[in-house]
Amino acid sequence: MPQPLAFAIHAVDGKARTGTIIMRRGAIRTPAFMPVGTAATVKAMKPADVAAAGADIILGNTYHLMLRPTAERVARLGGLHRFMGWERPILTDSGGYQVMSLAELTSRSEEGVAFKSHLDGARHLLSPERSMEIQRLLGSDIAMAFDELVPTTSGRDAVAAAMERSMRWAQRSRDAFGRDEGDGALFGIQQGGLDEGLRRASADALTAIGFDGYAIGGLAVGEGQEAMFACLDVAPGQLPADRPRYLMGVGKPTDIVGAVERGVDMFDCVLPTRSGRTGQAFTHDGPLNIRNARHAEDQGPLDPDCPCPVCLTWSRAYLHHLVRAGEILGAMLMTEHNIWFYETLMADLRAAIADARLAAFANAFRARYGGSRTGEAA
Amino acid sequence: MPQPLAFAIHAVDGKARTGTIIMRRGAIRTPAFMPVGTAATVKAMKPADVAAAGADIILGNTYHLMLRPTAERVARLGGLHRFMGWERPILTDSGGYQVMSLAELTSRSEEGVAFKSHLDGARHLLSPERSMEIQRLLGSDIAMAFDELVPTTSGRDAVAAAMERSMRWAQRSRDAFGRDEGDGALFGIQQGGLDEGLRRASADALTAIGFDGYAIGGLAVGEGQEAMFACLDVAPGQLPADRPRYLMGVGKPTDIVGAVERGVDMFDCVLPTRSGRTGQAFTHDGPLNIRNARHAEDQGPLDPDCPCPVCLTWSRAYLHHLVRAGEILGAMLMTEHNIWFYETLMADLRAAIADARLAAFANAFRARYGGSRTGEAA
Repeated sequence: MPQPLAFAIHAVDGKARTGTIIMRRGAIRTPAFMPVGTAATVKAMKPADVAAAGADIILGNTYHLMLRPTAERVARLGGLHRFMGWERPILTDSGGYQVMSLAELTSRSEEGVAFKSHLDGARHLLSPERSMEIQRLLGSDIAMAFDELVPTTSGRDAVAAAMERSMRWAQRSRDAFGRDEGDGALFGIQQGGLDEGLRRASADALTAIGFDGYAIGGLAVGEGQEAMFACLDVAPGQLPADRPRYLMGVGKPTDIVGAVERGVDMFDCVLPTRSGRTGQAFTHDGPLNIRNARHAEDQGPLDPDCPCPVCLTWSRAYLHHLVRAGEILGAMLMTEHNIWFYETLMADLRAAIADARLAAFANAFRARYGGSRTGEAA
Repeated sequence: MPQPLAFAIHAVDGKARTGTIIMRRGAIRTPAFMPVGTAATVKAMKPADVAAAGADIILGNTYHLMLRPTAERVARLGGLHRFMGWERPILTDSGGYQVMSLAELTSRSEEGVAFKSHLDGARHLLSPERSMEIQRLLGSDIAMAFDELVPTTSGRDAVAAAMERSMRWAQRSRDAFGRDEGDGALFGIQQGGLDEGLRRASADALTAIGFDGYAIGGLAVGEGQEAMFACLDVAPGQLPADRPRYLMGVGKPTDIVGAVERGVDMFDCVLPTRSGRTGQAFTHDGPLNIRNARHAEDQGPLDPDCPCPVCLTWSRAYLHHLVRAGEILGAMLMTEHNIWFYETLMADLRAAIADARLAAFANAFRARYGGSRTGEAA
């Protein structure tokens, strides 16, 4: 039985690794950043421009797609890749995180989660089995196990109970997920909050079940960078070294740099796209708000060290005008720049690891970006 | 003194002509459709995609740009072309039409029009001299004379008075407009409503002043296609045959076909861009609303005979999903298709004129599009 995913590690620098995930639909260079394509679109970008920015893989949201246009419709239309015109790998989340943050829950039990759609109030059920079915209907290349989340502020007992249920659901996800040739990969998700012992137990349970890759879940939900890094000092090492490690929902550029130093291989986050639509640009000198009056006659690019088409063509003054005027092109260009910034950062991190100079690169990046700031806009 | 504009007519078919307008920044193939770039952007499109669709020239709106970011700021930033990243010719309107349709007028006299901005209530003046100054600051390739408009429902005396004032303003525009080498072209605008005699007098006055091209103004303001065509049976022939004739603000595809048959060379209209943002697509089989449920699982393209990147890549089902979900990419792709549809129509018209088969082409286009329908959505 062929593996749906092969992971070749090319170089190691400290705890960091750079490598390639080989899949049927293409190769993913790691450390990798996955732009979020919530509703079958990376918002405000054409797929070809997402690829040109350097993205090898994007993320699709099971929760959004199951509600509209529905997984069954996407399947009838030939799957998510064909539907949206993106031929490279797609990772889908399980829906677990968003159903708990966006929907009105009507019941939550060992079986799964019943909820009302935030769009039209229609009733739906998500369970490990249904989540696997949806992700298979979408044609996902990397599916995620269905897990249960609790706030990081929950007590240890609640965190432990959710982790243990998530491990039972991980087994049900594994059992429900097809293993036929052509099926995609399945990743398990480590839970356990900020508790090292719970994280250890979760990692052991997942490893015993066996997955193609392992995610670190339950972080980047308000605990702050310091607490997240403390967890990441330990969590990646609890997971199998020969499989990709994916930190879900992270994050700010300095979060990513620090997580790569701690051994993480994959990331996703809405920050570059969402910030682009609200006028915030990421630059090597830190984030900036293009609406600020100081940019009104600035003929320079968003970031003088950015190789993206936006920085090569348009001035801050023009982007300031577009965003102030509420023009769609403003959202388009700011998003494109931000995705390039993130993907260029990943390329720089890969090169630094390959050259065994990650610490120097990371320190220089943080010093210029303002890495110690905690109150930065993004 | 070199002419800012040369017009070579390559072929004539009935009253229709096909040719090339040669300007410093590039050639404009006629009949030409100019996408509208209101606020220094063709809404939801990158300039390179506008050019790829076949547009040789775009239109910028003096009224919008004088308010935001202001003509003076655009000039300090190197002019409109550099500001927005469009290197080909730009035609600017005079501001006259939009100041009367969008702003709150505070006075209207022989001197000009005083008004309050619809954005912030600030007071401004537009006059022939100020309009010429603004268009020069923007770096316009083709500037338009400043004219006065009255509703088509106005009585003959009001129409005559506005036309006569517009002719005095045309002379003031001509006097105020630079004639130095490197300055752009200046077009006069024929007025006179639906009255053949007033149109004749207006054409004679403009020709006596002398312009690089001539526009037909005051149409497409609610009079209906039949009345517009009745006017166009006469108006183009009243203008110099060796200069480009520009029908302002027109129009639906069948309007354009009929106007080309009557001798018009240039067009602009917000329909393809505005319709794209509201989910309406132009096709050879007439307009369609992609939000309609019948498109939800339609795997075909918007228009099977359209060569645009959107029709080559994405299905109606995907566009239906994007537009229903309010995704920016929906506005982007629908706009791009519509601009391609308009520009492809112009290319087809040019080829038909060159081959002396315009009548057959126009009749076939109308028959398929549903040309006699008057209740069509756009």
